Amino acid sequence: MEIWLNGDICDPTSARIDPTDRGFLLGDGVFETLLIQQGTPVFLAEHHARLLASTQRLSFPSCPSLETLTHAIAQLVQINELHDQSRSAARITLTRGPGPRGILPPLNAQPTCLISLAPSPTPPRHARAIIATPRRNDRSPLSALKMLSYQDAIFAKQEATTKNVEDAVFLNTKDELACTSVGNLFCWMGGTHLVTPPLSAGILPGITRAKVLDLARTLNVIVREEAIPQTQLATISGAFSTNSLVGLQTLSELEGRPLQSPPAQAALQQAYDALLAAQRKTQNP
Amino acid sequence: MEIWLNGDICDPTSARIDPTDRGFLLGDGVFETLLIQQGTPVFLAEHHARLLASTQRLSFPSCPSLETLTHAIAQLVQINELHDQSRSAARITLTRGPGPRGILPPLNAQPTCLISLAPSPTPPRHARAIIATPRRNDRSPLSALKMLSYQDAIFAKQEATTKNVEDAVFLNTKDELACTSVGNLFCWMGGTHLVTPPLSAGILPGITRAKVLDLARTLNVIVREEAIPQTQLATISGAFSTNSLVGLQTLSELEGRPLQSPPAQAALQQAYDALLAAQRKTQNP
Repeated sequence: MEIWLNGDICDPTSARIDPTDRGFLLGDGVFETLLIQQGTPVFLAEHHARLLASTQRLSFPSCPSLETLTHAIAQLVQINELHDQSRSAARITLTRGPGPRGILPPLNAQPTCLISLAPSPTPPRHARAIIATPRRNDRSPLSALKMLSYQDAIFAKQEATTKNVEDAVFLNTKDELACTSVGNLFCWMGGTHLVTPPLSAGILPGITRAKVLDLARTLNVIVREEAIPQTQLATISGAFSTNSLVGLQTLSELEGRPLQSPPAQAALQQAYDALLAAQRKTQNP
Repeated sequence: MEIWLNGDICDPTSARIDPTDRGFLLGDGVFETLLIQQGTPVFLAEHHARLLASTQRLSFPSCPSLETLTHAIAQLVQINELHDQSRSAARITLTRGPGPRGILPPLNAQPTCLISLAPSPTPPRHARAIIATPRRNDRSPLSALKMLSYQDAIFAKQEATTKNVEDAVFLNTKDELACTSVGNLFCWMGGTHLVTPPLSAGILPGITRAKVLDLARTLNVIVREEAIPQTQLATISGAFSTNSLVGLQTLSELEGRPLQSPPAQAALQQAYDALLAAQRKTQNP
C-alpha cells in the first residue's frame, strides 16, 4: 500500500523517516485517524480543523491545507485502488520534523507529514472493558491534543488483553471517568439520559463525540457534558465509546459488570449510520 | 556525524527509520542520554540497567546488551573522532519497531535501536526557572520510564523561553514539586538540608539523582526523599537540577524569586566532579 510523505507518493518499504525527526525522538507531533467510505474521507474538514488547531497550540510553523489533504487522500485511494472498499482508514501524521539535539524546537522547523491508508474491517459492535491503571492527565493542556504519545493507551490495551477483554477505560487524576483507550466515552445513567465527560476531564475533543452530542440533541435524548466521579461507576446502566473508525461501540461490560443499552442508543446508532450514508451521497452524488 | 542503527554504522542523511515504526507513530519507545568523557561513556552500566528495566516493564521482546551498547558507542567515538572531545553526549533510542495499524503491539515485534553521538558543550552552571503549566502525571506507571513522549517538556521549555528564563519546574497532579523539564530536582530547606521528590511523585529515577543521593549521604549532608507540596515553595532556600549531561545545575531563581546555594552544594558539586574524574581514570587508566 503506497503512502504519501511530504508531497510524494512512495512505497513504505523504501520511504524514509529521518532519524532526527522530532516525532520519532520526542513524540513532537500529532495525528488524525479517519474513516474512508468507498474512497471518500468522512468529516475530513473537521479532522483538518482539529489538526490545524493542534499545530497552532504547539507553535508548528505550518500545517497542510485541507486541499492538500483532500488531494493526497484522493491520490492514495486511486493508486491503492480503494474506491470499492466500503471501509478504509486514513492516518495523517504530522510532526515538527527533523531537528538538532535538545528539546527546544528549531526556529526553522520543517514539519513532516505522512499519510497512509489501509483497509478497515467493520469493527465489532460490542466491547468489554476494564478500568486502566494509568490515569489520563487532565492537568496537561496537551491532553486535549491527539499527540503521538500513546504509551498509556498501549499499556491500557495490554492490560485489557491480559484480562481477556477488548478495551480499557481511563480515569483521570481527579478520580473521574475520562475516556477509553482510543475513544470518547458516553454513559447512560438510569437508562434514560446520557452523560459524557467534559473537555476539562483531560480528553480529546472527538469528532464523533461532537456528532453524537448533536444527534442526541436532535433526537431529544437528554445529554450532558458532566464529570462522572469514579464513585458513580455502579450507577452507570449502559455505555458506549466513540471514535472515527468504530463510530459508536457498545460497552457491554465494565470491570466485570454487564451493562445494558437502552432503546435510545439504537436510535442514536441509526442516526449516526444515516449521517455516514448522507456523507457518501453528498460527496459521491 | 555517523550514527548506529540496528547494528550498522550509517550516515544520518541516508539512514532510514521505517514510517511504520511504533516509536514514530505512537511514542512506543524509551531512550537514554549519557555523557561521554574523552570518548568514554559515563555510568553506561547504570543507563543500560534502566533501559533494560524499562523494556521489561513495556514487554519489549528484547533489549540490546551492555556489551552491544559499549561496542556501538566505541565504534561511534572512533569513526566520529570524539576521543579528544572533553564532553560529548550519546543518545540511545529504543522503540518497539515497525508494526501494523492499531495500538496493540505485534507479537513478533523487532525493536529499533538508534545510537547517536554529538559534541556536548559545558552547560551553564545556573538556570532560572518558572513553574510549568503541564503537570507531571504521577498517576501513570509509565512516568517512571524515560519514554519518547516529551511533549509536556517541550511545552514547558517553550513557556520558559517565552518568559526569558532557561528552565521550568513541573508540579505533579497532587500539587507537589516533581522535577524540571529535563532533570530531577533537589531543594535546600532552611539552607541546611536537602529534599528531593520521591519516585512516587511521578518522576524518572535519574542516574545522577541516585549518585547525588549517595554522595550527600557520604558527605553527611542531611537528604530526604520526600514530597514537597507546592505550598512549601516559599520555604525553599536553594535548589538544583540533575541529569546526565548537566550534572548538577543550580536553580538561581524560581518564579522570579532568587535562590541561594549553601556551601554544602559546592561540596556536593566537587564530589560529583571527582566522581566523573574517577570514572575517566578507571576506564582510561
